Amino acid sequence: MREQFQEELDGVSATLVQMAGLVKVAMEHATTALLTADLTLAEKVIADDSIIDDMQHELDARTIKLITLQGPVASDLRTLVTSLRMSADLERMGDLAHHISKSARMRYPATAVPPELALTIEDMGRVCVKIIEKVATVLQNRDAERALEVEKDDDEIDALHRKIIQTLLDPNWTHGVETAIDMTLLGRYYERCADHAVSIARRVYFLVTGTYADSDK
Amino acid sequence: MREQFQEELDGVSATLVQMAGLVKVAMEHATTALLTADLTLAEKVIADDSIIDDMQHELDARTIKLITLQGPVASDLRTLVTSLRMSADLERMGDLAHHISKSARMRYPATAVPPELALTIEDMGRVCVKIIEKVATVLQNRDAERALEVEKDDDEIDALHRKIIQTLLDPNWTHGVETAIDMTLLGRYYERCADHAVSIARRVYFLVTGTYADSDK
Repeated sequence: MREQFQEELDGVSATLVQMAGLVKVAMEHATTALLTADLTLAEKVIADDSIIDDMQHELDARTIKLITLQGPVASDLRTLVTSLRMSADLERMGDLAHHISKSARMRYPATAVPPELALTIEDMGRVCVKIIEKVATVLQNRDAERALEVEKDDDEIDALHRKIIQTLLDPNWTHGVETAIDMTLLGRYYERCADHAVSIARRVYFLVTGTYADSDK
Repeated sequence: MREQFQEELDGVSATLVQMAGLVKVAMEHATTALLTADLTLAEKVIADDSIIDDMQHELDARTIKLITLQGPVASDLRTLVTSLRMSADLERMGDLAHHISKSARMRYPATAVPPELALTIEDMGRVCVKIIEKVATVLQNRDAERALEVEKDDDEIDALHRKIIQTLLDPNWTHGVETAIDMTLLGRYYERCADHAVSIARRVYFLVTGTYADSDK
């Protein structure tokens, strides 16, 4: 009985890792679609978001069933409740990749990102994907040390976000208000995606150590 | 035993209503602070956000304890798990009021919102507060019919959001890119706040009727 329950718990955790993998690919593709005006890729990310949504629904149903049927002890219950929260974070990260892809699609056949911001957006995408990969490892290995690293990676995202705003405010900005609106929202999407990743890392840290990684959240 | 448990369940629900009340006041004050450059009010919303955060933590701890100690039956368990999600929505709505107040504080002593957008932002704030009030009633009375209304109110928010973007894109826009960035983010904050309210309304609808209010989420 206990053995079977442990298997089910491991299954929940494995699905979270799998979701993180899909979110990583979605964010990778969304950034490429955005920077290269690749409509096919943008459409793929938009369509595939429902796979992540469905995984969340299926996982949450499974998690709630485990809580109901097994009446788990406190620490297992905490893991299961936390997994409900992490699946919500991952689902939202998928939504943000979906938003980025919609921005690519809206401006097609033009490239949504002007040349002077291409590198910064590329960096944001790259750091965001790195963070999601790290979070997948943190989930897989319940690795508290690696969870702490995610906070530092998030500082990189914040610095890149500030760089976008500075570029928009530069007197040499010639792309007008419409592109500024797009870039403001894109910056926000990447930033929020990283925030959700940090929140997952913090939850794992707490599950493993019983203490909070940081007092500012 | 069962009676006491019912009391505790009612207590969880009452705390959610109370949280919604605080979020409503926060959003009301944030909008006033933004439109009238009221620094004191902005600071108050920013400081009081921790009250909402603390309520969420306390409520979630209580909810998880109820799940652990009582091993509730399926429908009660669903209510408790859903309340964990709704408290997260409300906490995030409080964060968004906090963001709006920070925008007011950042531009003080100037008013963050230019005259041609003041009415639209006022409307967004008003509709947002109306939605939060309605959600409080929906939570209090488990009112499925009223929950459906929230979807329609959200359409108002979306229309106002489009109006903001149109104003920013008007060739007569003279306030430059910095204000356009601020307005883009402010529009997004109100829109996201309403989205979270819709999500709470949908959860209550599902708890009461057992069916989904809408297929697009």
